[in-house]
Amino acid sequence: MKKAVIIPDSFKGTVPSEKICEIISDKIHKYFPDCKTVPIPVADGGEGSVDCFLNAVGGEKKYAVVTGPFFEKVNAFYGILSDKKTAVIEMAACAGLPLAEGRLDPEKATTFGVGELMLDAAKCGCKKIIMCLGGSCTNDLGCGAAAAAGIKFYDNNGESFIPSGGTLSDIARVDFAEKSAILDGIEFVTMCDIDNPLYGETGAAYVFAPQKGADAACVEKLDEGLKNAAEVIDKAVGKEIDFIPGAGAAGGMGAGMVAFFGSKLQMGIDTVLETVGFSDIISDADIIFTGEGRMDSQSLRGKVVIGVSRAAKKQNVPVVVIAGDYDKELRGAYDNGVSAVFSTNRVAKPFAEIKKDSAENLALTAENIIRLIKAFK
Amino acid sequence: MKKAVIIPDSFKGTVPSEKICEIISDKIHKYFPDCKTVPIPVADGGEGSVDCFLNAVGGEKKYAVVTGPFFEKVNAFYGILSDKKTAVIEMAACAGLPLAEGRLDPEKATTFGVGELMLDAAKCGCKKIIMCLGGSCTNDLGCGAAAAAGIKFYDNNGESFIPSGGTLSDIARVDFAEKSAILDGIEFVTMCDIDNPLYGETGAAYVFAPQKGADAACVEKLDEGLKNAAEVIDKAVGKEIDFIPGAGAAGGMGAGMVAFFGSKLQMGIDTVLETVGFSDIISDADIIFTGEGRMDSQSLRGKVVIGVSRAAKKQNVPVVVIAGDYDKELRGAYDNGVSAVFSTNRVAKPFAEIKKDSAENLALTAENIIRLIKAFK
Repeated sequence: MKKAVIIPDSFKGTVPSEKICEIISDKIHKYFPDCKTVPIPVADGGEGSVDCFLNAVGGEKKYAVVTGPFFEKVNAFYGILSDKKTAVIEMAACAGLPLAEGRLDPEKATTFGVGELMLDAAKCGCKKIIMCLGGSCTNDLGCGAAAAAGIKFYDNNGESFIPSGGTLSDIARVDFAEKSAILDGIEFVTMCDIDNPLYGETGAAYVFAPQKGADAACVEKLDEGLKNAAEVIDKAVGKEIDFIPGAGAAGGMGAGMVAFFGSKLQMGIDTVLETVGFSDIISDADIIFTGEGRMDSQSLRGKVVIGVSRAAKKQNVPVVVIAGDYDKELRGAYDNGVSAVFSTNRVAKPFAEIKKDSAENLALTAENIIRLIKAFK
Repeated sequence: MKKAVIIPDSFKGTVPSEKICEIISDKIHKYFPDCKTVPIPVADGGEGSVDCFLNAVGGEKKYAVVTGPFFEKVNAFYGILSDKKTAVIEMAACAGLPLAEGRLDPEKATTFGVGELMLDAAKCGCKKIIMCLGGSCTNDLGCGAAAAAGIKFYDNNGESFIPSGGTLSDIARVDFAEKSAILDGIEFVTMCDIDNPLYGETGAAYVFAPQKGADAACVEKLDEGLKNAAEVIDKAVGKEIDFIPGAGAAGGMGAGMVAFFGSKLQMGIDTVLETVGFSDIISDADIIFTGEGRMDSQSLRGKVVIGVSRAAKKQNVPVVVIAGDYDKELRGAYDNGVSAVFSTNRVAKPFAEIKKDSAENLALTAENIIRLIKAFK
């Protein structure tokens, strides 16, 4: 075995993807000391996404003081990848739930800082911006970010304002005239693995606002706001953003990225594979290790394992999946290029009881897989 | 992959070893249609042992009407292997717990029928008798079997009697003079995987009699009886049987087999490997599958997995273990020749909840192992 690529999702709540890469890499080297290992830890677009990209392809972390969720100043960051043309921004860096801890308020929280990070990246010469949604405390449809980029929002009285979740209903007109020219020609890719529309029962407010501090009345207000704003924005941009799958991601930021910045919404894993040049990386690989906390072949959409397997299948590279739990119906996975799936569950005990042993059990599972390969290589 | 040997222990209470062999064999043929599979289902010496031997090496099942646990007549059986020289007897066939159900009485139960089965096998020309202990309802030190074979037991009044658990204390003298000559020259091998001495705190009565229906007073009486009888028997045979590891197996039958029939006590798995000619079978095998319900590398003694691995290691044949649970310390197993261990636990749930899916989960685990091998073969 000369080259192994390790590209796992995090095991949510137990082992982060960087750690998984490290564990599997160590075990490979124990039995194949000369094997080159290529770790590509994947984040789901939430916290840690920038680090994951930087780990995978190199580059530098840029820091910038920008507007926080409640218009205070925060020290945020983003990544500029080694090509010096691609920026990776995780909106959680300046509009994330941890920043709003103890004062959650989705009516007031803004994505203004996210727009400032985009401008900063543009000023640094970036020609592509990858936006990682996830973990946001906002519900402003990305209007804050738009405002930072120079897009103007007016109320019925013709007054300009920066809309937040609670004032989306006040938007009467949107004006792109003063949108910062520095953003022109920049390619936007927004990582988004969910299907939710902007509003309604499965929309941003009803599904995600409660965890951002909204009670029932607030949810209703936010939902109304999103609907009203969408009507105005649709007219302004000349297309309907309301029901694009993923429009409702990150408090409507999915829709906002499309409407205000012309972004495409793309599966996180596809974005990662594209960005790291996965097909080149695996062209001479003997094996690919991937994995996730729960492998559910019923929902193949946007999953790391399936994205990786599909790419690997094109080049006939074996894919081994290490999962916490896995669904018994594996045909879909096999058909998509998965060679074999192994669970880290070493004993028949409930998750709560074995959770603490996750890293150790993962290491054991990886070691046994590698020992088996060794026996046949 | 041209040849695979499948030699699992039963997963206690979930999947019998024959079924495990069938499942793994099916999965091998799904991916390697031309692979020869050699199933060797292993029983632990209890119920099913004869069938396991017959399955593994061929032969015929012999039926015989003999004495049951309470001196009634029962229709019992034993196996004569394909060499026509080796008999396999499981004592449970005429002295097993199921036969005594509803009337458990270790003071009265006898192994007389077991002796009759030995005589029957001897009359059929067998030159070797493999005795499978386990699942007995008796505590008679094998005196019943000895009596059936013509060995005489006398009490203090010089009266001859057939001792059972409750009358072991009455044995004053043992006389081998009339022992059936047909047993002369027969090699006895008794399968025994436990270490317990004949009597005392870890002896047959204290450890095993309660599950045979003994209350505290009865246990004490049985223990006294074993101790007294051993004293007399030791003198008669000129060696001390009391503390031989395994003497206390099956109500003292371990000690009785040594004392009355000159048997050796041997690990079950070693007996199986020897009997089936394991080293020849694996000499051209590409892989060996073995497994057990719980792989505990702390207690390596007598375990199927370890016995198999040690034999395989001598010929460098890879050994894959499929286990229900496994212990995290695997060095002992690796050192003994295990290539890799995989658990059938597919989801983090308690055993009671996933027990019903054992066969299905075993099949999934086997399939993934074989798919991985296929990817590298």
